[in-house]
Amino acid sequence: MSFDRVAIIGLGLLGGSIGLAVREYLPGVVTTGYDLDPAARARAAERGLVGTVSQTASEAVRDADLVIFCVPLGAMGPAADEIAEALPESAVVSDVGSSKQAVVNALTEALPGRTIIPAHPVAGTENSGADAGFASLFQNRWCIVTPPEHTDLVKLSALVSFWEALGANVEIMDAAHHDLVLAVTSHLPHLIAYTIVGTASDLESVTRSEVIKYSAGGFRDFTRIAASDPTMWRDVFLSNKEAVLEMLQRFTEDLTALQRSIRVGDGDALFDHFARTRAIRRSIIEEGQDDARPDFGRTDHRVGG
Amino acid sequence: MSFDRVAIIGLGLLGGSIGLAVREYLPGVVTTGYDLDPAARARAAERGLVGTVSQTASEAVRDADLVIFCVPLGAMGPAADEIAEALPESAVVSDVGSSKQAVVNALTEALPGRTIIPAHPVAGTENSGADAGFASLFQNRWCIVTPPEHTDLVKLSALVSFWEALGANVEIMDAAHHDLVLAVTSHLPHLIAYTIVGTASDLESVTRSEVIKYSAGGFRDFTRIAASDPTMWRDVFLSNKEAVLEMLQRFTEDLTALQRSIRVGDGDALFDHFARTRAIRRSIIEEGQDDARPDFGRTDHRVGG
Repeated sequence: MSFDRVAIIGLGLLGGSIGLAVREYLPGVVTTGYDLDPAARARAAERGLVGTVSQTASEAVRDADLVIFCVPLGAMGPAADEIAEALPESAVVSDVGSSKQAVVNALTEALPGRTIIPAHPVAGTENSGADAGFASLFQNRWCIVTPPEHTDLVKLSALVSFWEALGANVEIMDAAHHDLVLAVTSHLPHLIAYTIVGTASDLESVTRSEVIKYSAGGFRDFTRIAASDPTMWRDVFLSNKEAVLEMLQRFTEDLTALQRSIRVGDGDALFDHFARTRAIRRSIIEEGQDDARPDFGRTDHRVGG
Repeated sequence: MSFDRVAIIGLGLLGGSIGLAVREYLPGVVTTGYDLDPAARARAAERGLVGTVSQTASEAVRDADLVIFCVPLGAMGPAADEIAEALPESAVVSDVGSSKQAVVNALTEALPGRTIIPAHPVAGTENSGADAGFASLFQNRWCIVTPPEHTDLVKLSALVSFWEALGANVEIMDAAHHDLVLAVTSHLPHLIAYTIVGTASDLESVTRSEVIKYSAGGFRDFTRIAASDPTMWRDVFLSNKEAVLEMLQRFTEDLTALQRSIRVGDGDALFDHFARTRAIRRSIIEEGQDDARPDFGRTDHRVGG
């Protein structure tokens, strides 16, 4: 079994990239798509993000054998309500949300008895909207699929093959464990980045132009992820509250310990901490999860600018 | 007036890059250099980081008209002690340290009556050591010069010209203000990155291999600066303690406020915070202080890896 007619609900960075990737890597597959925002629909049609841009969500899913929700987490339930009647009986329903327990609950409530197999491609950029997507976004990135118990294995296998065709490496994981892992590797980093960029913006003693000017000292790295879509991230924190708060508690304890080391001038404790965080970067590069070049290979800003 | 004979004490990322940049952009200028580590001296000679690698610091500075200390902040005093007798009367003494009040104090104590003009090129990568330097490191980067009161303006102007020749844009600033600005734009970001990478390494509920595997969700951005030189950063936090603790206090307050918004489910507060941090990224890119391409223009890790 494989999917022939894929409907994409939400045509932003993720939805648009799926559409473009299907066109590139699964050329026989028919795509339809819908976005709540008329301007995004118009832009999606211009860019050819999907074969047909529909004027309603129901119309987009009517003939689909795979429906993928690419909307903010808080919009999953309402979007699923909207297509409930038009959804073909045998279609698989999936998504790309960054937290998974909340999604499976929302989709199951809106679409009782349907085949729901949530997924999360761990891929993205700081850009969002119908202009942001590109076909190669999922190449060599992980896609975590979190099937509920008793999921039809044929349908699960078809979803895995779909993501592999788009270039992703697929992992199967329990939704609760996914939410814990991503709280560490994605949600907490975003929260910290949003915080520090906010802190810097609010200072009176240091001007905003100084912060921008001297951002190459480290700060600019944080501004990239703090430029991510606010609606998406609001919903991530609301939907994965428990795991995020748990990780935040640990982070705060560690930060307090380093703060004390600075205050009392304990150089050995600082050195020991800083020395052991180096190895993890090497592992990330060895695993092909980041650019090995110094400074992420940044170059453009040196020329001209 | 311009400098003809530049001595570089410490041949790591910064010292090595200055040597290579002088060779490239100031070809008439003679360079000597010294590093405490014999292996670094050998590698510096192989790479031609300076014209002559000396076997002692005194030998390196004997004929210099500009001496630049490129050693960790805690080593500035001892390194200056070592060259005090050999240093020519008229030579200008400078450095590249990331905090400036501590440096001016240490150098003034070790070299009373000499011309000391501290400087801080806001440039670097996560790599360190004699292999890390490259000639273009300072191109279109800021170099902050913090002359003490009553600095000889002819010598100051020569130092400014030197850094401009290496490609930097020079700003003159009071040392205390420098330390406050850099606490926000560089020191606090490094402390936060070191903390979060440590927090993730210590978890039992999420394995280390999972953290590495799914690091593209945001975490990997932090691992880059948390891979920076531990000795250098230990000394930064010890030498700029007051400003770092002040900024850390503000950061912690802001984080606590966001934590509360998550706990009570205040989506509007989260959205408002996340929406206003976006603009600062745009400004940084407009000012030519970062790569405008999505995801810093990362590409290599997608190929092969």
